Amino acid sequence: MAAPLTVYLAGPDVFLPDAIALGERKKQLCARYGFEGLYPLDDTVSAAPGAGPPDRLIYRACVALLRRADFGIVNLTPFRGPSADAGTVYELGMLIGLGKTVFGYTNVTADLLERVQRSDSVTRDTAEPAWRDSDGMLVEDFGNADNLMIDAALAEQGHEIVRIAAPPADRFRDLTGFEACLQRAADHFAGDRAR
Amino acid sequence: MAAPLTVYLAGPDVFLPDAIALGERKKQLCARYGFEGLYPLDDTVSAAPGAGPPDRLIYRACVALLRRADFGIVNLTPFRGPSADAGTVYELGMLIGLGKTVFGYTNVTADLLERVQRSDSVTRDTAEPAWRDSDGMLVEDFGNADNLMIDAALAEQGHEIVRIAAPPADRFRDLTGFEACLQRAADHFAGDRAR
Repeated sequence: MAAPLTVYLAGPDVFLPDAIALGERKKQLCARYGFEGLYPLDDTVSAAPGAGPPDRLIYRACVALLRRADFGIVNLTPFRGPSADAGTVYELGMLIGLGKTVFGYTNVTADLLERVQRSDSVTRDTAEPAWRDSDGMLVEDFGNADNLMIDAALAEQGHEIVRIAAPPADRFRDLTGFEACLQRAADHFAGDRAR
Repeated sequence: MAAPLTVYLAGPDVFLPDAIALGERKKQLCARYGFEGLYPLDDTVSAAPGAGPPDRLIYRACVALLRRADFGIVNLTPFRGPSADAGTVYELGMLIGLGKTVFGYTNVTADLLERVQRSDSVTRDTAEPAWRDSDGMLVEDFGNADNLMIDAALAEQGHEIVRIAAPPADRFRDLTGFEACLQRAADHFAGDRAR
């Protein structure tokens, strides 16, 4: 039997107080679908003197996992603002640049425009026409979950972002959307596995 | 004489009311340093019937420019929250995944931790120890401008993010940091050009 396909698990999950436990839950779900989950906290960062600054070591460990992964699942739940966690978005871009398949989910269903409207004063410039925030910056109105680069990156691969209405208190831990991504991945790679 | 090196100009600049004019200013500065600037609004998106949804067409045009670019300069000024614009961060990740050199600047000098502290209630968990936001999510404390993946991606290439204390009202238009990146790029590629 061939080794299972590996999947990089990106998301703000790593910032939770129970980050390790959540990673274990995700990896167990991966195994149930026949995949091996690679979680950013998997590789213990060397504390050896002279090894380098800790942030650089964490970066290198994550990049090694990103390169090793056969595909990715990214948690795009809004984080400290209307958009996804910046580290997760960076990893999504890198996975796409490396030519890998990526599946994504968010635990908030509202469009980007709707979320910016909730947190800022957004006005309609009828001349353009366009929505503009309190800094005068355009707010995209494509019905997307986030900046168009994020939604389109996944849509171009044939699978839109999975949007789940998780209970707000559970939005960083609900794994319904994550499991939906695993199911999509299983369907996507079914042909490869049958070979 | 060889064709000039091309540089992808990423940033929330594209959301300004005067986005086109700012892009022209950036491209003129690029030319002064011997580079050809590629601005995300350069390629007019086809409005032909059946060409596809506009966001998908914009994505494809940007990705074509990202692939064509010899290197990138990314504007990492905080946007709608403590982190950089999500579209810009996606493009940074993609450039790195494609193996390209990237220079970055931000027009706000404060660390990520300091900026999160300004916008949220951040508490110190002395047991871990770690800083945690009002959702209990860890706030990185590496002295970085943004999520470590962003700062380290550039630092690993040998050039930290340029941080400029631009006047707040001008933070999306000040090009001091942009020009500092152009100077770094000119120094970086000087050897290639001399060949």
